[in-house]
Amino acid sequence: MVIFVTSNKHKFEEISLMFNHRGIPITWKRMKYEELQADDTRTVSLDSCMRLREVIRKPFFLEDTGLYIESLKGFPGPYSSYVAGTIGNRGILDLLAHGRNRSAAFITVISYFDGREIHQFEGSVKGAISYEPAGSGGFGYDPIFMPEGTSKTLAQMSDEEKNAVSHRGMAVSKLISFILAGNA
Amino acid sequence: MVIFVTSNKHKFEEISLMFNHRGIPITWKRMKYEELQADDTRTVSLDSCMRLREVIRKPFFLEDTGLYIESLKGFPGPYSSYVAGTIGNRGILDLLAHGRNRSAAFITVISYFDGREIHQFEGSVKGAISYEPAGSGGFGYDPIFMPEGTSKTLAQMSDEEKNAVSHRGMAVSKLISFILAGNA
Repeated sequence: MVIFVTSNKHKFEEISLMFNHRGIPITWKRMKYEELQADDTRTVSLDSCMRLREVIRKPFFLEDTGLYIESLKGFPGPYSSYVAGTIGNRGILDLLAHGRNRSAAFITVISYFDGREIHQFEGSVKGAISYEPAGSGGFGYDPIFMPEGTSKTLAQMSDEEKNAVSHRGMAVSKLISFILAGNA
Repeated sequence: MVIFVTSNKHKFEEISLMFNHRGIPITWKRMKYEELQADDTRTVSLDSCMRLREVIRKPFFLEDTGLYIESLKGFPGPYSSYVAGTIGNRGILDLLAHGRNRSAAFITVISYFDGREIHQFEGSVKGAISYEPAGSGGFGYDPIFMPEGTSKTLAQMSDEEKNAVSHRGMAVSKLISFILAGNA
């Protein structure tokens, strides 16, 4: 049994779907935890994981995702959640007016405490910011992000479709393979 | 003698000017330190100060400033420094296109360790975001912030003028009064 620590219902729904498909029990621990301010997501995630393992003392993982827009020097990056809750998708589209390059990448980092050690898994997907929001699935920036090689936003995909191509799906696949390989 | 811990040269210049006028010795300790991710600047600042006092072990202070834009739900707020270094003033102006309300406030929090205890001092100034950057003084958002009751941006003022009306000047005045009152 693995515990997923997140305050985000959508993240739990997406990730538990993948665990259920593989028959691995997963429990949602709905809590907020303190994070460092740092530009490197792996460092922030590792620090959070080290503090939480003192409290949880059982196998668990946590997940951090950032959207990195090239022409905005990586903004909103590590502060994606704060930015989504303030200027939101409308703000991102306003920032890319005036013909700015729309290339972007989503990056997810998972930190997993197996009861003894911490392991990190990363997933990423390149793509572009759309000109208008589209779709009602997913959450956050999904309505304005089109993965490379598709003409849909992540919000226009089913959860299964999204998991098959997404940053988060890739990181979770690596975590599941690690667990099934008997490393936990 | 008081130590000011900051990696920002401009902040040291502004603040040391006020200390010099009052004849209080001030030393610049140029260093970066880790900060929490939190929406409340007082909490972030207190946490940093508590960690730094273990290392510095002498009287020192640190300063955090945020720009809070009402129509953007307080963005960029606690992440003002990161936002200035990515989307910058141009980004803020783009976000306020389409006739959004331009009211904003600058807030500074100083945490001062007097050798025994920590004290916090706050300063703030209301104003509005200009339509275009103006002036070459100051730093950061100064070229696009006009304090209430003026028609100049902070970057169009001399350091003395700026200190007389600014968030940072107000917080530093409170700190200096506290020190001169013999509380340190």
